[in-house]
Parts: sequence; C-alpha cells; structure tokens
Amino acid sequence: MRLLDSINSPEDIRKLNCQELKQLCSEIREYMIQCCSVNPGHLGASLGAVELAVALNYVLDTPKDKIIWDVGHQAYAHKIITGRREAFLCNRKHNGISGFPKMAESPYDAFGTGHASTSISAALGIATAAKIEGINTKVVAVIGDGAMTGGLAFEGLNNAGAMKTNLLVILNDNQISIGKNVGAIHNYLIKISTSPSYNRLKNRVWHHIGNVSFRQFIQKMLLSMKLAVFKHGSVFEGLGFRYFGCIDGNDIGQLVATLKNIINIDGPKLLHIRTVKGKGYKPAEENQSVWHAPGCFDVKTGKRIVSDKGDTYQKIFGEALLELMGSNAKIVAVTPAMLAGSSLLEIKRSYPGRCYDVGIAEQHAVTFSAGMAADGLLPFCVIYSSFMQRAFDEIIHDVALQNLKVVFCIDRAGLVGADGATHQGAFDLSYFRLIPNTTIAAPMNAEELRNMLYSSSLPEYEGAIAIRYPRGSCGGKCERTPFAFIKKGESRTIRKGERVAVISIGTIGNRVEEAIDELAGEGITPMHIDMRFLKPLDYSALEKACRLGRVITVEDGSIIGGLYSAVSEFVASNGLKTRVKGMGIPDKFIEQGTVDELITDCGFNVDDIIKEIRSEYL
Amino acid sequence: MRLLDSINSPEDIRKLNCQELKQLCSEIREYMIQCCSVNPGHLGASLGAVELAVALNYVLDTPKDKIIWDVGHQAYAHKIITGRREAFLCNRKHNGISGFPKMAESPYDAFGTGHASTSISAALGIATAAKIEGINTKVVAVIGDGAMTGGLAFEGLNNAGAMKTNLLVILNDNQISIGKNVGAIHNYLIKISTSPSYNRLKNRVWHHIGNVSFRQFIQKMLLSMKLAVFKHGSVFEGLGFRYFGCIDGNDIGQLVATLKNIINIDGPKLLHIRTVKGKGYKPAEENQSVWHAPGCFDVKTGKRIVSDKGDTYQKIFGEALLELMGSNAKIVAVTPAMLAGSSLLEIKRSYPGRCYDVGIAEQHAVTFSAGMAADGLLPFCVIYSSFMQRAFDEIIHDVALQNLKVVFCIDRAGLVGADGATHQGAFDLSYFRLIPNTTIAAPMNAEELRNMLYSSSLPEYEGAIAIRYPRGSCGGKCERTPFAFIKKGESRTIRKGERVAVISIGTIGNRVEEAIDELAGEGITPMHIDMRFLKPLDYSALEKACRLGRVITVEDGSIIGGLYSAVSEFVASNGLKTRVKGMGIPDKFIEQGTVDELITDCGFNVDDIIKEIRSEYL
Repeated sequence: MRLLDSINSPEDIRKLNCQELKQLCSEIREYMIQCCSVNPGHLGASLGAVELAVALNYVLDTPKDKIIWDVGHQAYAHKIITGRREAFLCNRKHNGISGFPKMAESPYDAFGTGHASTSISAALGIATAAKIEGINTKVVAVIGDGAMTGGLAFEGLNNAGAMKTNLLVILNDNQISIGKNVGAIHNYLIKISTSPSYNRLKNRVWHHIGNVSFRQFIQKMLLSMKLAVFKHGSVFEGLGFRYFGCIDGNDIGQLVATLKNIINIDGPKLLHIRTVKGKGYKPAEENQSVWHAPGCFDVKTGKRIVSDKGDTYQKIFGEALLELMGSNAKIVAVTPAMLAGSSLLEIKRSYPGRCYDVGIAEQHAVTFSAGMAADGLLPFCVIYSSFMQRAFDEIIHDVALQNLKVVFCIDRAGLVGADGATHQGAFDLSYFRLIPNTTIAAPMNAEELRNMLYSSSLPEYEGAIAIRYPRGSCGGKCERTPFAFIKKGESRTIRKGERVAVISIGTIGNRVEEAIDELAGEGITPMHIDMRFLKPLDYSALEKACRLGRVITVEDGSIIGGLYSAVSEFVASNGLKTRVKGMGIPDKFIEQGTVDELITDCGFNVDDIIKEIRSEYL
Repeated sequence: MRLLDSINSPEDIRKLNCQELKQLCSEIREYMIQCCSVNPGHLGASLGAVELAVALNYVLDTPKDKIIWDVGHQAYAHKIITGRREAFLCNRKHNGISGFPKMAESPYDAFGTGHASTSISAALGIATAAKIEGINTKVVAVIGDGAMTGGLAFEGLNNAGAMKTNLLVILNDNQISIGKNVGAIHNYLIKISTSPSYNRLKNRVWHHIGNVSFRQFIQKMLLSMKLAVFKHGSVFEGLGFRYFGCIDGNDIGQLVATLKNIINIDGPKLLHIRTVKGKGYKPAEENQSVWHAPGCFDVKTGKRIVSDKGDTYQKIFGEALLELMGSNAKIVAVTPAMLAGSSLLEIKRSYPGRCYDVGIAEQHAVTFSAGMAADGLLPFCVIYSSFMQRAFDEIIHDVALQNLKVVFCIDRAGLVGADGATHQGAFDLSYFRLIPNTTIAAPMNAEELRNMLYSSSLPEYEGAIAIRYPRGSCGGKCERTPFAFIKKGESRTIRKGERVAVISIGTIGNRVEEAIDELAGEGITPMHIDMRFLKPLDYSALEKACRLGRVITVEDGSIIGGLYSAVSEFVASNGLKTRVKGMGIPDKFIEQGTVDELITDCGFNVDDIIKEIRSEYL
C-alpha cells in the first residue's frame, strides 16, 4: 500500500521518519504526474515543490501555522497532503477544486492566490495580526524567483524588513517561471547561489593566519566588515532580512533540518532554496517551459497529446505583429514574462532589439512603454487581461493622461476557463472605458484582429488603444487576409433585421450569429451589430438599433461598466423608450470550468441568446 | 541685477562659473520662497533640489538630454530655469502652469509625473528608445528616497540593471517625503550614508600590516571578498547598478564635478545624494513635514498664514476612526505614507501597535490589509483616491475575490484642486463599482461620514467597503453626533418634490441643495435623493425618482461608470421612458484650479444644476 493513501492531513505526515518522507515525496510525484497526464494542470512548478510542501507541513503546525503560496502553481503537493488527494482528480474542473490555493476550499490554504507577488504582503498581514492578537503563529511565504520581480513583492520585503515581525520568506529559486526569468534580481540570485560564500572565504583566510593576536585583529576586522559591508551585504540583508541559503530544496532531509533550525529565529528571515522545475519527471526537467502546463500526455513516453484546434488568436496576433514590425521600424513589443503565452517568441527571434520581456512587472511594462512612446516609438504592450489590472494606474497616469500612443494588446480577455476566478479577463472593457483618451476595440474574428492591429499602427489612431481578444482557438484554420484599414469607432452591421437589435462586441458575436442562424427557421430575424469599438461608440448605429425598441447587448465581460452600460447611457440620456437587456458576466467572481461551461453559467451562451431574442421579438 | 533675470534657458546657465552657479542657486531659492509665500506650493522638496536642478541642466544638454523628475514636487527650480520663471507666478493656478512636470508644457519636461515611483521605468523607456534610434541621449531619473519604496521603482531598477542600458538614476535622499519615510530601504540608506565605507576600512587595515607578502595576501583576500561579497554588495549593486555616493547634493561644486565624472560611464548607474528638505529657509528646514506644502506665509517671520475653515473631512475621519478603535480592538489602520494628510497622527500616537504607515506602497497597503483581514482583524485602509488606482488589482484579487472585510477609506475623492490632473479623484466610483462583493458609500456631510464609518465596522457590512470623501472643509464647525447605524444601500430622500428628480451622491449633494433653495422662489420644487450608496443601489428610491420622467444625476466623479451609468442601466433595463441627464466629471483629464473653478469647468456647479433643473422641470 502506498504511504500516500494514509495521508489525510499533515498530522499523518508528522509521524513519518526521514526515509518515509522521501518515499512519500516520490509517491506524491507519481500521483501528480498520473493525475495531470489525464487532467491537465501546472505540473512543472508543483513537481519542483513537492519536498517543500511536505517539509513545511511537517515542520509547521498547519493549519494553525500559515503557509502562503505565491501564485499557487506550485501548490499541488500541498493540496494533495492537506485532505484533497481525491479532490485533486477534479483539479481545475467545473465544480472541482481550484488550481490555486483558495481560502474557501481549505483551512490549509491560508490566503488565496493566482496573481504573482502577493505572498509577502499577505504573510506580513497575517503575522502582524497574530502579533496583535498575541497568538504564536508561524507564517511562511513561498515565492518563486519569477514572482520576486513584481514590485508588490519588493514593497512587502521593504515593509517586513523594517517591521521586524516574525516571518519566513522562502525564495523558491528554479530560474524559470513560465519562460526563462529575466531581470537583475535573477542574475543576482545566480551569483549568490554559485559564488564562494562569505563563510567559506572567511575559513580559508583563517587557516592562513598563525599569529593569535593578529588573528584576533583580523577577526575584529572581518566582524567590522561584516557589520559595515556584509550587513548591507546581500540585497535581502540590505532590506532587513536575515538571509539563509542557498540550499537544495529537493533534498527533504536538508530542508526539514534547515526549517527546524531557522523557524524559531525572531524577525524577518529569507531562506533561499534551489529547486528543479519538473523534478522527478525527465521530460518535464528537460523542457521546463513546455512542461509548465503541458496539457494531457502519455506518462510512459512523455509524449504530449496535442490536439490541433487550428489557429489561435495568440498565433494570429503574433504573426500580425511580426508582419507590422517588418514594415514599421517604430514598432516595439513589450511583455511582462509572457513571450511564449502571447506568441512573441518569433518576434523576439526576429527583432531581439525591439522586443522586451521585462519579467513579471506589469506596471513597469506599461510605464516603460510610455517612456518609449514619449520618445517617438510605437510600443505594442501585450498583457493578459486580468494581469493588466495591476497596471491600471500606469495606463491612466503615464499613458492616457499624457496622450501617448501605446497599443495595449489585451490577451486572454473574457472568460478563460480552467484557471478560474483569479484569471478571468472580466473587467478590461469596464476599466478601460472610464479612462479618457482611449480607444477600445475587440475583434469578432481573426481577420478583424489583424485589421485592428494594423489600423492602430497608423496615425489615424492616437492615444491609448486597447485591443482585446480571447484565449485560444479562433475556430479552425484562418486565412491571413491582407491588412485593411478600419475606421476608428465604426461598427459593422452584420444583419439588418427587425424588431430586436442584438449588439455584440468581440468574438462572442459568433455565438450571436449561431443563435440567429438557429432562429431563422422560426422566421425570427433580428438586427445584429458588431460594435467593434466600445470607445468611441458608433452612435449612428446605436440609434438605428434603439429605434427598434428592443436591444440586447452581448459581451464576454462584466455587465457593469462595459458595453451594456454604454448602450444604457445612450438610451437614458436620450429618453428613448428602448428596453435594453444586458448579457455578460454577472457581478460576481466566476470560478473554473471550460469556457463553454462558464459562458453557460453566466447565461450568455447560444441557447440563452436564442431564448432572449425570442422573448424580446414578440 | 539678479543673475536669475538673465536665465531664460539652460543655455544661459552653461556660461556661468562655479561662483556664479552658487549665486544663481541662492537667487532661485529666494525667488521660490517669495513666490510660494503668496501662491502656495510644494516648497520644501524644491528648496532641497535647487542645486540638483541647476547642476543637471548645466552638465546635460537639455532638452536633447532628458531629466525625469519622480513625483515632481522637487522640480520648481527646474521649471524656473527652463523658461518658466515668470510663469511660475501662476504655479498651480487655473490656466497657469502645473505644479508637476508636464510634457505639454515644456520640451524640458521629458515625462509627466505626479504619482510616485514612475521615473526609472519611464527613463529606461526613453533611454531604450534612444538606443534603438541610434541617438546619443543622456537620460537621468531623479527619485526621492520616499518614492523608492514604491514597487514600480523596484521593477524599473530590476529591469534596467539587467538591460545594461545607459541610464543614471539619482537617488535624492532627504529622508522625508511628506512625512518621515519608513521601510527597510530607508534604514538601509541611512546606514550606507553614515557608516564607515569599505575603502576607509580597507585603508585602516592596510596601515596595520607590515609584512609585504602578507599584505599581498590580504590584498588578494580583500579583492576576492570585494568580488564575492561586496560586488553583490549594496542593494543597488546587487540589482546591476554601479553605485556612487553618498555625496552632498546641496554642494553645487561637488555635484557638477561628480555628474561630469559619471555621466559618460556606460551602463546603469545610481548616484546617491543627500539633500536637506527646505534647504536655505530656516523654518522649512526645522519643520520639514509642515513645510512640505506650507500654504501662504510671511517670508520674514516664517509665520504661516493659516485661515481656519473649520473642520475638514480628514479631521472628522481621523477622530471618528480613533473613537471606533477605542471600542473595537479588531480595528487596525493602514496608510501608505499619508499619516498626516489623512489625519492618522493621533491614531498612531494612541494606538502605535494598531496603526501602520507602510511607506509609499499602495499595493502592499491593500494586500497587507487583506492578510490582516484573513486573520480576523478589521483593517481600515486609508488611501487617496487617485493613488488607490495603483492597488486596483489588489482590491480585486486579494480583498474582493476572497470576500475579506476591509474598509477602504478613499480620501481626496472627486476634484482636488491645485494638484491638478494627476491627483483628481475622478475614477474611484467607477472602478469600485465593477468589482463584485463591494459596498460603495459616499457621505453628504460630516455626520454621515461618521455614521458610515461606524456602520461599516459592524457585522452587517461584509466584504470590501469603500467610503469616499473629498479633500478639505466640510463647511464650518461640525457637531460630533453620536454614531448611528445606516442600513447598507439605503438612500435618503431629502426633498420629495415633483416633475424632476435630482439624484446625487456624496458631498456634491450640498450644491444640489443650494440650487434647489434658489429655485424655490420660482416655485420649482424637484425631488432630491441622496443615494449614499452606489452599491448596492436603492432600487425602490430609484423607481420613485424615475416615475417622474426626468432624472438628473450629480456626482463629483467621472461621468463614465459611476452613478450616471448605474441609473441609466436601471432605466434602460426596465424600458422606462425616463430621460436621464448626467452631471459629473466629463471624459477628459481635468487640470489644476480651485475646486470651485474646476466644478464650474466641468459644468456641475450650483448655477449649472439650477439651469438643468429649470430646463427639465417644464
């Protein structure tokens, strides 16, 4: 029988000896690989952090003590050993468990995560609360070297280092997040984990000195140097943390021993561990970027089961931008750590000097783009919708307010599926609409995406331009049509129709088309307008639509603040007696599932649209 | 004749000798003090940075070379010597020049600022653009030690250190932003600018060693230590910057010499200078916090001319929170560097262990609050409206998504006046409304503010709660009424009225009352509803209002996404033939002026409201 089968909570782990812990880690790995081979997930990071999850739950008194996993991709082992072994079979599935730590799911998940760099701040909050309440709680934040580049992580370190609260930050250094990590901190970590340590050097010197009084002098000198120089030594010591490491984070024995040693030391501490992403599964170790989230695969052969769903919006985007960069030397591309995810790898290869991966640093990506725009370049700044939220102020303050021209390519807009609540691109239409000097566009298909990218590169488009497109397939193989100009703010009337006008924006318009096709048999022929632009609005098209008396808006975005609000404002300000029915993401957070399941949950799938048109058509 | 009168651009400065530069600095100071004594501004920081502005424009070939001033409070001397000497008389005035650097104002303002921590990212963007275009542009970012705690600054350093672009960051270390700076970086800077330097220590050791071969050994050892230890040495060296300093930034001779020395060194460099906030004006040096922005004053006596406008919303807020903390031990207060501005000083004094100034770090302030809430405390997180934009993602991801209870006290909501476009609190109603699990309230007066703070501390209020209130006077001396509970989402019908319903939210409702009072003589008696809550909406009150057929919404916030949108959605979704006229901040950025001037510009002052009611009333 597997040891793992007897582990129903960390209590059970704490009874094991070191050899058994090793065995358990090996079993967890095997189980994780099995599960993920048929039910895709973020395997790579979690394989690297098996020993860490076991060691932390072994040494700490969880759930009384708290572990905060930054991002959470690496927390599968933690989930499996904290009562969710069976539930893990439904990882990331509709009504299953979340792929990320989630407070509502388990008392062992001390803080919900998903976005990067939040763990230190949250851990400091939890540690401070414990201190105020006089409870002896041990608090540990686990953060990858990738997430460490996010400004929020630095703000957390800076505050924690000054507050002197008891807190352990574990820097899980695997040198890769989704792609290869970049940035000075990354280079720095390589240096301090590979160069001879201060102590080794000190010992070497020691053996060369015979004279005792001189030894004392040198000792004093080294001490004073340590105080004067080394104390400000490493970046982390400079920030008020005691630095420990670097140790092998895949060695359960060393990990447990080290954690036991340092967990009771007062004040802010940072333990630097090195782990191998994909550890224990050869294909994953060998190609870490692909195996970050490999999809289904054959465990024995390591062959990934890739179903060709034709072109994706990401692919169309990457190709179009590459083409534009070929003919316009002013264009530069900027991404915060999503070269692969946003299809910029080919651009990086073709134009290494004009394509910037700035690491996990959305705010910087935007202000850096603004700086380039101020000097006359034309940045295309590519960020996932839900991550772009982090640069909201920079979009306002550094781009729009100065009326600088930056094209924001909002990847993974709308419902994204299995990544769930933290990753849904629900809000971009709404938060961009309230920003002055912006143009907001959403293509209905690949051809439109190409044309919008092209058009926005021309002088007719000014200021901040947002182009949003969803994750994944654009429905089979798409033709690469020659670039054609789209006039800013001009909608497309797809069906002239009657009685009811359906106004959609973005790719959800294709579901509207499906719905209308199905209704044709019933003799129901509504108008369908693809707005294309949320801002500026095509008022003449809107007026025509409203004249029918019944309008249905459909958007793959929050029902608050986006297309529905804009159309409602038009109706109300003109005192029209037009009823507007809004279909979109309701005012709540949407958990994981397939995109289709989630759209159905949100009530704007084809059947819902059919029903709505039918009921309004009478 | 003053030297200053002959300085119309930096060209004129470059002809001066060192003695003349000194004289010029002294004259600039005198002029700045004179101007600010009658036309209030951010005097303190700018007094400290006179030599820096002169030296940079002396050594660099501005405007070809670029200076980016972080925040911009310190850039008055820069403005005065770059063609805006006379214009400075209208600093921060309606139709005058901005109190911050602004690209549209002058080619010498290389990038617009106002919010903290943007300069390094923007400078890196400008430097990168120059490199791509093959232009030899020198780029300098000037950042205070306060702004250095913002995560965006770290993201910029981290990316710049890795990119190896030519860039000089000047760390203007005066140990104070608006209040005393906090954080580990702050402590670190004190250490490295006051402790014996590595070199001094090395020399001292040197003299103690006679034996030549041993001297060589030690030399080798020190060298290897320098490589192994000191090379990762300071925090900045660890981040890939060459560190220079610390030097006296108020010594023009030393500053010019140092800048000349290092400006042509390749790669990312950081020059650490110490300056004195308020330098050259004794009262300002002695009380730096007060003289950050002293208002009008008598130059000779240094006596500030403080007109007592009675209570401010800030004062009412601080007192109420203090009172609540006295009776509820779960409440903690959090502010990012605005202890004084948000009236938390008394709370800090009374409850030092329950009041946290986390430095300029809005994101951290929010996630730190979320962490405390996760552990059962009740954080009141106090942030200025326009700065809270920076924590948009953290409000969504760390608070609302987890349905944690945090009370966001949105200070300086609405139009703020002289600080201008970067500081207007225009967007908070809109960006909070689109976030699920939130309550949004705005008091019309001091009593309501007290009651909203009180009510939100009770269990009846859950999740994220936003309470917005404006900067400044609440109209004379206010009574501290006993706390009374306000039911969540319940509006107040102030006038029952007829024909037209005016729906307002927040303190702007008082102007609505003024308007209606004036209209009474004409026999015009509209309904007036103080919504109090933007979310949840009081639908029953809305319905009554809409039944009148004509609705006017008035809000001191963006016309997009806030009250006007919410009311429009209600009307449109119900197919009512109600005309809704929205009065609020239009879809553009609003420059500086008095609040009254700006409200008039935006078209929702008393006269505008009168006109609108009158025209709709017929």
